[in-house]
Formats: sequence, C-alpha cells, structure tokens
Amino acid sequence: MGIGKHLIDRINTNSLYQTIGIQLKSAGKGEARSILKPAATVCWPFENQPHGGILFTLMDTTMAWAIQSELASGFSCTTIDLDIRYILPARGEAFTCRARTIHRTNRLCFVSAAVTDPEERTIASGQATFRIIKMDFI
Amino acid sequence: MGIGKHLIDRINTNSLYQTIGIQLKSAGKGEARSILKPAATVCWPFENQPHGGILFTLMDTTMAWAIQSELASGFSCTTIDLDIRYILPARGEAFTCRARTIHRTNRLCFVSAAVTDPEERTIASGQATFRIIKMDFI
Amino acid sequence: MGIGKHLIDRINTNSLYQTIGIQLKSAGKGEARSILKPAATVCWPFENQPHGGILFTLMDTTMAWAIQSELASGFSCTTIDLDIRYILPARGEAFTCRARTIHRTNRLCFVSAAVTDPEERTIASGQATFRIIKMDFI
Amino acid sequence: MGIGKHLIDRINTNSLYQTIGIQLKSAGKGEARSILKPAATVCWPFENQPHGGILFTLMDTTMAWAIQSELASGFSCTTIDLDIRYILPARGEAFTCRARTIHRTNRLCFVSAAVTDPEERTIASGQATFRIIKMDFI
Repeated sequence: MGIGKHLIDRINTNSLYQTIGIQLKSAGKGEARSILKPAATVCWPFENQPHGGILFTLMDTTMAWAIQSELASGFSCTTIDLDIRYILPARGEAFTCRARTIHRTNRLCFVSAAVTDPEERTIASGQATFRIIKMDFI
Repeated sequence: MGIGKHLIDRINTNSLYQTIGIQLKSAGKGEARSILKPAATVCWPFENQPHGGILFTLMDTTMAWAIQSELASGFSCTTIDLDIRYILPARGEAFTCRARTIHRTNRLCFVSAAVTDPEERTIASGQATFRIIKMDFI
Repeated sequence: MGIGKHLIDRINTNSLYQTIGIQLKSAGKGEARSILKPAATVCWPFENQPHGGILFTLMDTTMAWAIQSELASGFSCTTIDLDIRYILPARGEAFTCRARTIHRTNRLCFVSAAVTDPEERTIASGQATFRIIKMDFI
Repeated sequence: MGIGKHLIDRINTNSLYQTIGIQLKSAGKGEARSILKPAATVCWPFENQPHGGILFTLMDTTMAWAIQSELASGFSCTTIDLDIRYILPARGEAFTCRARTIHRTNRLCFVSAAVTDPEERTIASGQATFRIIKMDFI
C-alpha cells in the first residue's frame, strides 16, 4: 500500500502546507517523512527559525501520514494528544521529520517522530496517540 | 507589571500571528488570554476548522506571554516541552486560549492552558515546561 | 452515583495501596481525592520523600477513580497515556491528589490532576487520556 | 565511565527496588537497562499484571541511570516531566526497560525509553526531561 506519488503531490498542494512550507516526501508501511522549508512569515520571534508550533505542525501531520499509509480506504485518523520536546534550536533552511507507527488497534494508534536539522541533529522529538476514524481525510 | 496595551498591539503585528489569525488580548500576573480567528488557509483538512498545529501555536504562544508577563526586562522564555490534548473538534469562528503559570524558578516555569470554543467548551488542554532565558524576546 | 463509603473501604485494602500508603478518600461526579502517606520503603533515593513513581501511582489511580465514579456498572477504564510534571520536591508526611474528568465520550476520557503537599502547594500536575472498557475493575 | 557492577549491586539493594521488584542491569554511555519482575503486591487491579505506576517507576528510574551514567561525580538528575504511553497490557513475568539519552546540556537532559514484555513487544513508551543537579544521588 502506502501513499502513491500522485496522491502525495496532491496532498502537498493543501493550503496549510503551502502557507507554512511543508512537503510530504514519502509514506508507507507505517512510516512517513516530510520536509519543512519554513516560509519567512512563520519564522518568529527569531528570524530564520520556524516557530515551535510550526515544528509541531510538521510533526503532527507527518505522524498522521505514517498512520494513514496503513489504513484501509475510508478510514482516517485524528490526534488525541501529542507530547513534543524541543531539544535544540531550529537552525537551518530545511528540517526533516520522520514518523513511525509503534502499535495500532482498530481504534487507536501510537506513534513517535523526530525532527532533524540539516546536520542530522535531532532538534525535536514527540510521541502521540491518534484515534482511527471512519471517514475520508482527503 | 504585565504587558501593556501598547506593547500588545505591537506584538499582534508579528508575521506568524498575522498569517494564522492570533491576537494576544491580555497578559499579566502570570496569566494570558489570546484569541484565534483562524485564517482560511490554516483550516485544513477540515474546512472551517483550524489544524491542530494551529491550536498548538495558539496555546504555546499564550503560555509564553503568561510567563513573560512576570519576567524582568531582558529575560524571556522558550518551550522545553508541551503536552496537548484534543478534547473536542474545533468548531466555530473564534477560539479563546487562557494560560496561567503554575510555578516558576529562576530557570524553569511550569504552565497550563486551555482552549475554549465560542460556547465555552474546552476543546484542547495542555501543560508545558518553559526555560527562562536571558535575552530580549521582542 | 459516586463510589460509596463501603466500597471505598474495600478498595483501600488492595495490596498496591497498602504497600505504598495510598487511601482513596472520595469519588463522585467525575472527581476524586486520595491521600498518600508514603511507606518508608518507597521513599527513595531521598529519605522522607516518596519516589516520583509513587506520586505518579497516586495520580494515576486517583484519575481512574474520578472517571470510574461516573461509569455505569460493568464498565471500567485504563490509562492510555499520562503526562506528569514534578513542580516542587515532595516534602511532608501526607500528600493529597485531586483529579477531575474534563470530557468523556463512550470510549475515551480526558482527565487532569494535581498533587499538593501539607501546605497546599502544588508539587505535581498531570493530564491523561483513559480508555473506557467493558469489564469489572474491582 | 558508566556505572560499575559493584555499584549496580549496591543500587539494587534500595528499598524501593526491593519492594517493587526492579533490578538495574547495566548503565553506560547514556544508556541503561533494567528488569522488572513485579512483586505480587504491586500487581493490581489485575493479578499478574504490574500496575501502570510500577511500569512508570521502572521507566523513570532507568532513564535516571542512563543519564547518571554520563554525569561527573557529584552530579545527579531529577525528573522534570515524563510522558508515558501504555501500548499493550503488561503480561508476563519479567519486563525489560531500555532508556537512552537523546541530548544533554549542563542543566537539562532529554531521554526516551521503552518497556518490552518477554516476547519483545513494546508495551509502554516514554519520553522525559530531567534536570541536572549538583549533589550525590546515592
């Protein structure tokens, strides 16, 4: 399964991603990878550094795609809760988020993720629980 | 102390807030209140519902102002970690976040917050730890 | 509804509570209150201070009783995840935990709690998500 | 560095570990591994299953040893906050916790951990922030 290139291209046109500067790169087998090249408007209060909420959005959506990549058609997921830790300042022009599913039941999914900077240092880590819902996400 | 109206007005012109639709309303004595009237661009994947990352940004920044309202000049704060829970779908045109400091030392600050919808239902709750840093935030 | 005095007395005889030194005091309408008078054996590495895991156990079980107090017969709850923050050192002979339900659906329950020391200072705060399950807890 | 076998043996005699049934197995280079063979008294409300607070205590202390293994003499650490997720029921006679340091500054340390059952399934995962303090832990 996984999310095919054609669908990924369509996902990446969504207005949230376009506004912030996120691109989903791959999603399959319970794992996903996205890139954030933050728009200047969301780099505040420090110039050239995306706000923590932007890194959170990168992480939360990448987690969702990791889960989505294993769900049957007509099912989707929403965040119940997410715990994020900011380990290092977000310096650089592009940040990579990798998320992976830890365990999934019919109704719940546990997932973890990390964001790395251009030098592959982990700048944020997170773990979350999502709820599986019956509906189309896209 | 607290953050005066003049400074609040200036804070509210920042590019992140303008892009998302956040306005700080008040901040003093370790408490702060902000309003989110989400821009259409950040309402995704559900039309008219701000993304969870946008609610997180509302919460994280409101927490920061709650802390900042009690800090001496030249000190600021950054998020160490934040745990957010999504309790109800975010329906409505405006959301209010109230944050308050629970305890502060010279170096750390514990804070909690809730986001309510127009009918005063709690749609998200969070708790966080911030680090106090020596520098100008604004 | 709520949990009656007779049942509370029986709950308080459980081996975990006896080993640690926890007593449930009241539970009703989505709220619960417990007391920890820590056994010397669980005060480590600091004498006279219960280990953080003991405060966690106090919090987790008090949250569960808060939820349980509103569930119909034959239903129970288990922790999905819990985020705890240690705000002040746990000094004193007795600690009080108060928990309350924030929102409950058929399957999930969001709850928060705080632990206070004898001088009513908050020494730990937590928020959690529980899953509602069909079975007898007691 | 790391924590030598002789010191590990001494650590394992502490009253909390003895009461619960925890044994530190190894700690070095920012990683630690412990085993929980839960005492019957802490298996409640389900017989043969350690309470979630016991798994938390296993995780929290193993994280602390992972950090401690890299600290200079005279320094120790205490938990600021810990987020734990319960992924599967804790079935079996022995549980293994592995913790590792993600990043450490002079004052803070970020750490993650997982608990596995006898079949190597992850039954709980956690991430935490600790504060580095100047004092003897043992």
